Amino acid sequence: MTPTHPDDAEQGSAFQPKFDANGLLTAVVVDPDGRPLMLAHMNREAIDMTLATGEATFWSRSRGKIWKKGETSGHVLRVREIRVDCDQDALWIVADPAGPACHTGAPGCFYRRLEDGALVRI
Amino acid sequence: MTPTHPDDAEQGSAFQPKFDANGLLTAVVVDPDGRPLMLAHMNREAIDMTLATGEATFWSRSRGKIWKKGETSGHVLRVREIRVDCDQDALWIVADPAGPACHTGAPGCFYRRLEDGALVRI
Repeated sequence: MTPTHPDDAEQGSAFQPKFDANGLLTAVVVDPDGRPLMLAHMNREAIDMTLATGEATFWSRSRGKIWKKGETSGHVLRVREIRVDCDQDALWIVADPAGPACHTGAPGCFYRRLEDGALVRI
Repeated sequence: MTPTHPDDAEQGSAFQPKFDANGLLTAVVVDPDGRPLMLAHMNREAIDMTLATGEATFWSRSRGKIWKKGETSGHVLRVREIRVDCDQDALWIVADPAGPACHTGAPGCFYRRLEDGALVRI
């Protein structure tokens, strides 16, 4: 059996985030019980800030700038764990939310379920 | 209090998926216990096929074609629930996996955790 090279993107130990053409990857945030909080995007700077501060920071595609979640609302996301997927183009972040994670005031953004073609509030 | 219009994207009951410039949105798939399985993309056709068949179908960005998960491996994802986020550009899918959801053979794609700058297998 050939040992896995640490730089192998899928099996190795090197963190080599794979950004898309816009320099972004997808980040999913769930609470410690696995409930979905939000989905957003990160560039290299957002990842570095998240790691440095322990609070989730994203790249706002609509505003075209770095956006620390909770910077105005105070509803920061304190990061407990960061996982990466096989090809390293998505992150799975477990975080403690300091308040509602959705800008609508809902605990998380996925508050509606599709039922027979229509959305039903959960 | 003004009643919410059913077409209101954030609060209404109309399913109006918001696709990006490439006609795609992000779909996160978890198992019924909330464990992450995979993250992929869907276009309108993939959503329609998923709803029609009850098995998760995506758009493969690398191959540029519709891709039913498990079409070759048999490891289909039987959909239990589909949720949509506030601005309807992401789906949260709860599914029963018929086998490992990751092409590497892992149960899910997020099998490594970032610890002190390196990836550690969970």
